[in-house]
Amino acid sequence: MPTIKYYVREGLLAPGELSSPNQAHYDEAHERRLRLIRALLDVGGLKVAAIAEVLGAIDDPGRPLHKVLGAAADRLGGHGVPDDDAEAAAARDAVQELIARRGWFAHESNPAGEDLSRALAAMGRVGHGAFTELLDDYADAAEIVARADLGYVGRRGSVDDVVESVVIGTVLGEAVFNAMRRLAHVDASARLYGDKGVEGKVRREG
Amino acid sequence: MPTIKYYVREGLLAPGELSSPNQAHYDEAHERRLRLIRALLDVGGLKVAAIAEVLGAIDDPGRPLHKVLGAAADRLGGHGVPDDDAEAAAARDAVQELIARRGWFAHESNPAGEDLSRALAAMGRVGHGAFTELLDDYADAAEIVARADLGYVGRRGSVDDVVESVVIGTVLGEAVFNAMRRLAHVDASARLYGDKGVEGKVRREG
Repeated sequence: MPTIKYYVREGLLAPGELSSPNQAHYDEAHERRLRLIRALLDVGGLKVAAIAEVLGAIDDPGRPLHKVLGAAADRLGGHGVPDDDAEAAAARDAVQELIARRGWFAHESNPAGEDLSRALAAMGRVGHGAFTELLDDYADAAEIVARADLGYVGRRGSVDDVVESVVIGTVLGEAVFNAMRRLAHVDASARLYGDKGVEGKVRREG
Repeated sequence: MPTIKYYVREGLLAPGELSSPNQAHYDEAHERRLRLIRALLDVGGLKVAAIAEVLGAIDDPGRPLHKVLGAAADRLGGHGVPDDDAEAAAARDAVQELIARRGWFAHESNPAGEDLSRALAAMGRVGHGAFTELLDDYADAAEIVARADLGYVGRRGSVDDVVESVVIGTVLGEAVFNAMRRLAHVDASARLYGDKGVEGKVRREG
């Protein structure tokens, strides 16, 4: 199995126990880890380096959980160059106001605030600064999802399970919600513009 | 500006008008397109090939809108190999039941249903099949976001604007929601487990 060898070489997976010179034995923990790697890779879209960081964080009990989550979240942005144009400043203000308005408890160290600012600034640069009007609708939806996620994590037993669940939920939960949102778009569009959805609107106006 | 040359070479951007042998002139339409390319690349995380497909779809008025959205969505999955294990079958059933239960209007051609199945199957394979219990919470949230998105798109004027808004909203809106969800996690966690959030829970149990 060349993929397993590749994961071992990249440090994602501990080597198996040699049962003969050409045969390694992989136990249940290996297989569980292998399934997690494949899920983060295939569905989560994480790169090998990001997965190594996330797994290292899971395996290091001294590492604070928000660092684990930060490692999982890094793939979404954080290209290192903080923008300093007018759109970036407006977006940061909008995020600060949102957090204050919702009364959200926020870590300074949580990269999600900067990620949110970056996405809003990008929208501003393509002429969609007005998208900030939707922030409270998005926040309502995010609170529903976050409460459901936390309730789910809270039902898991062991500490290992909690940390692993949070990582899986953060990465794979995004894929779940993104697909769900695109399904809901088709439905909302059909209800608003008739059976053909936005296509109908475009065709009628075009 | 080497980046502009690169985008032109990759077919993402039409060449500018040569104002002198070494100088090309780029008009407002070029600049608007350039900002869109950068947003899809930097914040949306799309690959150059995916961006070419999305822009081609925007520029081809004969292409149905769900194909445009499909092109935007392709980066999320669709690795071509449909899974056929027990988890994939269970996930597909869960998605079909969800769509029926919500009374959602769904296109057969919408890849989001298969993306959702794929994400749920991946969760099933790492021992989180019970995550399907959260689908209705996720659907509630997705409906709120989709209604807000459609209302926003509906306020845009021209047809070009509608199509471009849908693409921007689909790709950048995901980045907005994903960051928002991670902010809401921190808040929900702090409310549930005290100031330290899930970290507190892990530390207490560990």
